[in-house]
Amino acid sequence: MATRQVDVATSVLSDNDALARENRRRFAEAGVLAINLIAAPGAGKTSLILRTIEALGGRARVGVIEGDVASRKDTDAVLAGGAHRAVQINTDGGCHLEAAMVARVLDELGLDDLDVVVVENVGNLICPTHWNLGEHLKVCLVSTAEGDDKPVKYPEIFGVVDAVVLGKLDLIEHVDFDRSEFYDALRTLHPDGPVFELSSRTGAGVDAWADWIMAQRQTLTCGSRIRTLKE
Amino acid sequence: MATRQVDVATSVLSDNDALARENRRRFAEAGVLAINLIAAPGAGKTSLILRTIEALGGRARVGVIEGDVASRKDTDAVLAGGAHRAVQINTDGGCHLEAAMVARVLDELGLDDLDVVVVENVGNLICPTHWNLGEHLKVCLVSTAEGDDKPVKYPEIFGVVDAVVLGKLDLIEHVDFDRSEFYDALRTLHPDGPVFELSSRTGAGVDAWADWIMAQRQTLTCGSRIRTLKE
Repeated sequence: MATRQVDVATSVLSDNDALARENRRRFAEAGVLAINLIAAPGAGKTSLILRTIEALGGRARVGVIEGDVASRKDTDAVLAGGAHRAVQINTDGGCHLEAAMVARVLDELGLDDLDVVVVENVGNLICPTHWNLGEHLKVCLVSTAEGDDKPVKYPEIFGVVDAVVLGKLDLIEHVDFDRSEFYDALRTLHPDGPVFELSSRTGAGVDAWADWIMAQRQTLTCGSRIRTLKE
Repeated sequence: MATRQVDVATSVLSDNDALARENRRRFAEAGVLAINLIAAPGAGKTSLILRTIEALGGRARVGVIEGDVASRKDTDAVLAGGAHRAVQINTDGGCHLEAAMVARVLDELGLDDLDVVVVENVGNLICPTHWNLGEHLKVCLVSTAEGDDKPVKYPEIFGVVDAVVLGKLDLIEHVDFDRSEFYDALRTLHPDGPVFELSSRTGAGVDAWADWIMAQRQTLTCGSRIRTLKE
């Protein structure tokens, strides 16, 4: 019974990966860099997207796919904040986005006049880990307010992401956050990948993150694939 | 296929409920009030448990069941902080606790000389929602740092809990948290239930929460059941 469950899970993930590859093909053909942004509830995903749109300014037209259990609050917020276009996915209780959900909204989003698409995943540090959406880059956002022990407590996500953002840097003086505890654990899981410390509230550190996104998009449009699914 | 999936899910949850009833019977027989504490990663569950143990002081012996994807960091912390006993459950990637996991550790925890057991669920505002563990009280902790929109974004959990704790009250001046936004949405989901505003860092508001726990335990040991599973 246990074996059968594992087989079913493997098959579901492998079906998802096939759809993810098709999404990635569509993003790449349109010259669009796709980012899958993963974080706990309230880590500041939407605020980061708003600051990123602002920091990218005239350099990139940003589309946003908003994944939420309920409401279209974030879609309204990013449209008001300058997203070129945005679409909402409501999972109605579902704990992560899947490639099929993203595939269904790509026509509505439209890719032809976009440069970057950020997919804001459902607030969850666990379930989105192994569900590829067709993104080029998986990014985990964790905030200082969540404490320095997130890499120890939720190791899987930090082991699969291309970059880590440490957000709410403006709160670091008001919480008990020990940078060496954080980095000691993080570096065992994410040894060489970039880490961006920033505050979406004050804007500190956001430019370096936006510049990195632009560099990644440049690499994509020069034809070299940033990251390959295990295919 | 969709129907079959729903049937399987219903059956799995109903098997879980049967085990949960057995856990609750064991808690009740021992005169132990059991609390299932649910929150996002980094909301401050362990800090709340530590402050609760301190505030209950000589009034109640507290046992803790720590649910985590990985590590036994929290179990060590609560034992150092005065928990009468504590056991760790590692889900190894699993996104919520289940009644069977709790059942397996009850002997190791031992109930005979405990008054209150707090089960710290895996950090997740979505997946633990419908998995009863045998608790008498389901409590959701959400922190001011996560923003005022959590009830709008994760409505299901707020609709099933007996009490809500709004934590990290010491940060409210440093974040954009609008109490009326929070309460307007919360009260549609949790119209009459208690809400405790507190700070585990400063201790503000913790006594009212601890007094409520003692009152709930009193009700339990007087023989009236606080809450019944839909059985």
